[in-house]
Amino acid sequence: MKKRLTTIAALALASCFPNFSARADEGMWLFSNPPTRQIKEKYGFEATPDFLEHLQKSSIRFGSGGSGSFVSSNGLIMTNHHVALSTIAALSTAEKDYVANGFRAEKLEDEIKCPNIGLIVLQEIVDVTERVETALAAAKSSAEAEAIRKETIAKIQAEANAEKGLRCEVVTLYQGGLYHLYCYKTLTDVRLVFAPEESVGFFGGDPDNFEYPRYNLDVTFFRAYENGEPMKTEHFLKWSDNGTSEGDLVFVSGHPARTNRFNTVADLQYQRDVYYPHMMNKYRRREVAYQVFGSENDENARRIATSLFRIQNSRKNRGGILNGLQTVALMQKKIDAENELRKLAAEKNLIDAASDPWKEIETIMAGWRGRYLAYDLLEANEAFTSATVSKARGIVRYVSEMAKPEAERLPAYRGDALEGTRNGLLGGFGGDADIETMMLTDGLSMLYEYSKAVEGGRALDAVVIPQADFDGIFDGLSPKSRATQIVQKSQLKDRKFRESLLDMSWEDLQKSDDPAIRLALAVEPTARALRDYNEAEVAGPSRAAYSKIAKIRFAVYGTEVYPDATFTLRLSFGKVAGYTEDDGTQVPFETKVSGAYEHAREHNFADPFDLSQSWLDAEAAGKAPMDAPINFVTTNDIIGGNSGSPAVNSKGEVVGLIFDGNIQSLVLNFTYDDEISRAVLVHSTGIREAVRSIYNLPQLADELGK
Amino acid sequence: MKKRLTTIAALALASCFPNFSARADEGMWLFSNPPTRQIKEKYGFEATPDFLEHLQKSSIRFGSGGSGSFVSSNGLIMTNHHVALSTIAALSTAEKDYVANGFRAEKLEDEIKCPNIGLIVLQEIVDVTERVETALAAAKSSAEAEAIRKETIAKIQAEANAEKGLRCEVVTLYQGGLYHLYCYKTLTDVRLVFAPEESVGFFGGDPDNFEYPRYNLDVTFFRAYENGEPMKTEHFLKWSDNGTSEGDLVFVSGHPARTNRFNTVADLQYQRDVYYPHMMNKYRRREVAYQVFGSENDENARRIATSLFRIQNSRKNRGGILNGLQTVALMQKKIDAENELRKLAAEKNLIDAASDPWKEIETIMAGWRGRYLAYDLLEANEAFTSATVSKARGIVRYVSEMAKPEAERLPAYRGDALEGTRNGLLGGFGGDADIETMMLTDGLSMLYEYSKAVEGGRALDAVVIPQADFDGIFDGLSPKSRATQIVQKSQLKDRKFRESLLDMSWEDLQKSDDPAIRLALAVEPTARALRDYNEAEVAGPSRAAYSKIAKIRFAVYGTEVYPDATFTLRLSFGKVAGYTEDDGTQVPFETKVSGAYEHAREHNFADPFDLSQSWLDAEAAGKAPMDAPINFVTTNDIIGGNSGSPAVNSKGEVVGLIFDGNIQSLVLNFTYDDEISRAVLVHSTGIREAVRSIYNLPQLADELGK
Repeated sequence: MKKRLTTIAALALASCFPNFSARADEGMWLFSNPPTRQIKEKYGFEATPDFLEHLQKSSIRFGSGGSGSFVSSNGLIMTNHHVALSTIAALSTAEKDYVANGFRAEKLEDEIKCPNIGLIVLQEIVDVTERVETALAAAKSSAEAEAIRKETIAKIQAEANAEKGLRCEVVTLYQGGLYHLYCYKTLTDVRLVFAPEESVGFFGGDPDNFEYPRYNLDVTFFRAYENGEPMKTEHFLKWSDNGTSEGDLVFVSGHPARTNRFNTVADLQYQRDVYYPHMMNKYRRREVAYQVFGSENDENARRIATSLFRIQNSRKNRGGILNGLQTVALMQKKIDAENELRKLAAEKNLIDAASDPWKEIETIMAGWRGRYLAYDLLEANEAFTSATVSKARGIVRYVSEMAKPEAERLPAYRGDALEGTRNGLLGGFGGDADIETMMLTDGLSMLYEYSKAVEGGRALDAVVIPQADFDGIFDGLSPKSRATQIVQKSQLKDRKFRESLLDMSWEDLQKSDDPAIRLALAVEPTARALRDYNEAEVAGPSRAAYSKIAKIRFAVYGTEVYPDATFTLRLSFGKVAGYTEDDGTQVPFETKVSGAYEHAREHNFADPFDLSQSWLDAEAAGKAPMDAPINFVTTNDIIGGNSGSPAVNSKGEVVGLIFDGNIQSLVLNFTYDDEISRAVLVHSTGIREAVRSIYNLPQLADELGK
Repeated sequence: MKKRLTTIAALALASCFPNFSARADEGMWLFSNPPTRQIKEKYGFEATPDFLEHLQKSSIRFGSGGSGSFVSSNGLIMTNHHVALSTIAALSTAEKDYVANGFRAEKLEDEIKCPNIGLIVLQEIVDVTERVETALAAAKSSAEAEAIRKETIAKIQAEANAEKGLRCEVVTLYQGGLYHLYCYKTLTDVRLVFAPEESVGFFGGDPDNFEYPRYNLDVTFFRAYENGEPMKTEHFLKWSDNGTSEGDLVFVSGHPARTNRFNTVADLQYQRDVYYPHMMNKYRRREVAYQVFGSENDENARRIATSLFRIQNSRKNRGGILNGLQTVALMQKKIDAENELRKLAAEKNLIDAASDPWKEIETIMAGWRGRYLAYDLLEANEAFTSATVSKARGIVRYVSEMAKPEAERLPAYRGDALEGTRNGLLGGFGGDADIETMMLTDGLSMLYEYSKAVEGGRALDAVVIPQADFDGIFDGLSPKSRATQIVQKSQLKDRKFRESLLDMSWEDLQKSDDPAIRLALAVEPTARALRDYNEAEVAGPSRAAYSKIAKIRFAVYGTEVYPDATFTLRLSFGKVAGYTEDDGTQVPFETKVSGAYEHAREHNFADPFDLSQSWLDAEAAGKAPMDAPINFVTTNDIIGGNSGSPAVNSKGEVVGLIFDGNIQSLVLNFTYDDEISRAVLVHSTGIREAVRSIYNLPQLADELGK
């Protein structure tokens, strides 16, 4: 099986300030507050309540983190192959490898029942803001408010579930500006109908991921059943006979997972200058370390392959984001939008010199810039990516906390949480010694390389590790020798030994000569100080400041702006449009099936460009639909979680299926762009014609949209 | 052809302080001042003048950077396959690929004449220190001293060449403590006799490089001719019939290229904390960038392969050095040795508070630590690895220098040197646009990622690039877009355009709108300041300080210590010895031919573990010398340039052939270690038996040592 990487299914993250003047195709809009005015103004199209309700009730959320839709009156469901992949893999056996070979049900009886994959369909949205806020008004402290909020939400959900017989969830929008109750119908019997071979569904693999032009048939069909019969679906999307042309209006209905479009400029600059550069270095280090490990022999290569592909995917993704953040125009757009909001807020007396959440975040970031690296390496354990050292650090923290009165301990070491924490430290101890040694060597090297000798110790930016502690971390050994020593000599693999340590006093623990415990004891003072700093000076204050900004923004713009993504149903509008690359290359809006063959030939059909036998046979037989469009791009505003979302034209007919964004779309985490960022879709015609002529399933092709 | 990497042939670099108490096998000794006392004390062996003269005159220096030896009375020469590789490649054609298929001359007439490969044999060493120092005594300034030194050396060489009919060179030893005249005989007619297939000569490729156990037949034979006949060699090394056993005394006679064992502790700590970490990051970045480029298609993979292999080799090599520098014990050894020398120097009144070269270097390094990164990226062009930007930077520097009176210009822009500088800027413009864009993107990203926003600009450690210049470098574009723009839009590929720029005034050049010139103009102020700082505060003062240390060291220890390596003939002694890895693995001292087959099988005979057909045939025919030793390790003190050196026993018989060092031997750059650092050799018996039974050349096998 090829390693499949999440493309836009799980990318998540992302921030947007309104730019009314541009009238861009921006926004992941609430179905309860659709951008009808904007669509009308820009495209002259009236998105009626019926049109929107039909689209909403044809849309499906996948519990695994993607989107889908009903595409026939008989419960046929369309999503991406990469969204369905874990299910296809779960249905496969060594003899019947549906991942490698694909799956075709020629008739209903051939469709295979899936394990529960958590498909739900949004039926109803109710605004419960008033009820939550009324309850909150009684709170006398922020801790009490948090408790009341949780309790009220739980009560609203329980009442609604009982009353409606649906699965209801309260969604927090606009960072607490609105509370909406979303009620879903659950699809309990779902069966696999069709999946292409992975070499077709993930054609081009990692090299083509986040790229365009593309030639992927990234589609899979399921069918919902009720009472053992195909579900009769009132709401499903018809199929477009004509596809799309450049400039056509396209709606996408799906579940974007998370955006961070409300980050302040100071926060983004911190991310550009500190956070992402460090991430990238970490990824590059690991990519090289994994490749060296894999180059030793075939078995190592096999064992490290998933980790290697994942890190390459992350490096490509974060690299795209960082390249965007390093673009002056993008940052200027954020600066302009922030200045506009601050000006309007000042005019409405929402901020003043004494209370300006943007300035608060500036101050927070100024302090955090010099500490993040040390926090990531020491407290977040990134210098110690080792099961042995993780256990050691957990044990040291546990014993140190237990030495305090309960009320003074961190939450994980108090009350009901304590047992879980203890059990976690006693529980499973996974991983192979050679991989652990390789990763710990790289982590310790990173710590040594990133630290500089200064008076009194070694500094990671503004954080000084006292020399005695630094020496304790390395015990006089090189990173490689220290990692080898810890993985080989520590006794922490022995559960009884861990138990004995957990029951020690803090004083007795100091006497342990276990090398991993000695390392953890040396790390603890600096790591603990960083944790305290983060909580007191960064995490808490920035949550408070961002909440103030959300309230200001809501007060200034109201619901004329969309909220950050929350993995709930959103509507985006846009148009079919090619674009021009930096180097002047004109990228046409669509590709054709014939292009897939050409692309494969350019790469000598080598993995991951090895088109399946079914495609080769179809070509040889002259049956391949060479002229059918296969992929195309639009300006729709999408993000991870939108994978599998249907794209419909103004008649509500399926014209495509979201499966990726181009590399330039990675900035959508932070800001919308329609110059060069594009959503990448499978074309409805390519899907239908491939199903008909390459996979010889004319009845499925004919069912689409009927 | 597989990509071959230099192993110890060209690594170079490296520092040692004497440690008399340890009586270790340390030292790359002068044949004119051999460590006879040390050898006698430790091994009870008397290295007589005859023994040493014979070894010296049997030793050969390869102009390409390796070593070799005479191994028969008929001019037979032995070296490494990797030392001979460029010659073997030069003799190959598409039809006769001696690199892939190896080369076997069954009789003298089959031996092929090589292009001039610069083989020389040391005949005579004369101490000319007094003559040089007498001449230098007349100097009234350091500039005059430099001129006198050059002139005197040239005169000594010319006189000696004429008198002796040899090629004579003055070698500067102990950083100017001694001057010796080395006179060589030149071998003008050299023919190829035998080379194994590259898959055997470089068996295990990069994964096995710097590793042990090994199974390489890294050997090639040439023959020297005189007057069309095999040269009759009075001095050649006999062959050992018995090989070696653990603990045996072994001498290596070869040409170590360069060591840096006299670096001060402050200098080594700078290298550990700043220099090598940056190098490693740079290599990792490029390794990833090259791999991404290569993953696009087979043609890209082919085009980038050599660069990728080279960077992987450098990363492995520098990583080994850095891991060594990060070892407390190694640094402590350097600290102890430095303290000892400083104490002895103080006792002899050679240093005092006002003149202490170690303190001078401490001060130099304190200033350089914060500037090296910026220097490397901006002045050394590492952020701009692009033919276009290199030309642009050269043109900007040229025009800026030409605006000054000649006496104030940098040396390259004065007198005779000027024309060469100008021609260099007008000359060749190589490289492909896509590779250039990829590398420039990575360089610009590195510059952006490594710099932090500070008041007034962006800082690379202690160096602030003013905001306006930083903006000028990027022109508001992301690294990727800027690189694309420069490579596409700059007109610098046009020689005439470059010529017109060179003839501009500094003021007119400011008006250029060529994007590469605009970048170079923005870089120039900071880069130029860094260059001036380096010359005034780092390069000059540290040359002076190191020269003082060399004189002190010579005054304290005299020639009881060996000088740093100078790619001239040196003698090292040591013993055959296995060792214990960090993880406790006992590494036996030798491997057997059978191990090569096992090693290949473990890797399914996949490149670079694809033993050649000749080996497979020999195994099938039961003719492979399975029990013959093939590789072994010794404690000899070697470094890059020693590749191809013969190793002889106390009877002067060949027992092995140096071809690599283990990963732990990379610290030999800085210090000697005999715990775990090992020289890696091809075994004499493995060579003879493989030649006889696998390559079916019994007459060559019989000639060895005869």
